Amino acid sequence: MPVDRQTYRDAMARLGAAVNIVTTANQTGRHGFTASAVCSVTDDPATLLVCMNRTSRSRAQFALGDPLCVNVLATHQQPVSVAFASREAMAERFESAHWTVLAPGAPVLDAAIASFDCVISEISEVGTHSVLFCAVQAVRLGEPAGGLIYFGRDYHALPQAVEQAPRRDYGA
Amino acid sequence: MPVDRQTYRDAMARLGAAVNIVTTANQTGRHGFTASAVCSVTDDPATLLVCMNRTSRSRAQFALGDPLCVNVLATHQQPVSVAFASREAMAERFESAHWTVLAPGAPVLDAAIASFDCVISEISEVGTHSVLFCAVQAVRLGEPAGGLIYFGRDYHALPQAVEQAPRRDYGA
Repeated sequence: MPVDRQTYRDAMARLGAAVNIVTTANQTGRHGFTASAVCSVTDDPATLLVCMNRTSRSRAQFALGDPLCVNVLATHQQPVSVAFASREAMAERFESAHWTVLAPGAPVLDAAIASFDCVISEISEVGTHSVLFCAVQAVRLGEPAGGLIYFGRDYHALPQAVEQAPRRDYGA
Repeated sequence: MPVDRQTYRDAMARLGAAVNIVTTANQTGRHGFTASAVCSVTDDPATLLVCMNRTSRSRAQFALGDPLCVNVLATHQQPVSVAFASREAMAERFESAHWTVLAPGAPVLDAAIASFDCVISEISEVGTHSVLFCAVQAVRLGEPAGGLIYFGRDYHALPQAVEQAPRRDYGA
């Protein structure tokens, strides 16, 4: 018998994770949501994955072959996380920060600590969620900064790493 | 053109993640490795995923239908992470901590902040890595404690959450 949802959520609240804004863009405009279920799959070829609720209102905007950007938030960007986890309209969410575009075309968050600009290469449906496998086409290392972590149902700030490379775009 | 491996790794070093010991057991004994590429897929049915290097010496020990336990480390368990990321023999790795068993049969780390006892339900091969999808059969909420995070190629301690449930096993 699988464990009940609330118990599983209580346990998952103990798995700390980086906070990210996942974006795309298409003819209907820009779309994005706050996500902590993001992880690296392999560096050869550079691939990451994002788990997304199928009932999310943004779900239909992320299809095979579409651009997708994972923007890793710095400590001071908690307000951006809150905006993209809210019920605000997409236009208002994007107004909470500054954006640019690298190669594949999804919105890249200017002040993110790192951005992974991808194309969705595979989608697996598992229960209530879609797992989006993403081929990384370009990377931005943002200004060196600390990281924003969600743990115990709260935000936490991590200090800036000692050896962080300077801001730079790769593969764009 | 995909980004090169070193650039991708430099950017991924900016994505903070919880540190976990992923274990299994079979007729050849107990096996485990340190993993940060772990994330929740869905709470219905409770499912998580673990990314694992196909060239890892433990890879052959994790097969479809096998037990797999994700043990989320608390702040004070950095030595356990180091042991399971080392070249030590499996027996020596397991000697670095105390273990028990819940339902599916993989080693459960006594002092973990949370343990997810699973059965491997699906495996996707992506480049150099295997993505292990795991159906969660039992959960242990460990003693309330802070979390251990890897960020900027270093360990960081997160404070204990204000509202953490007491230690308890579910579904075992």
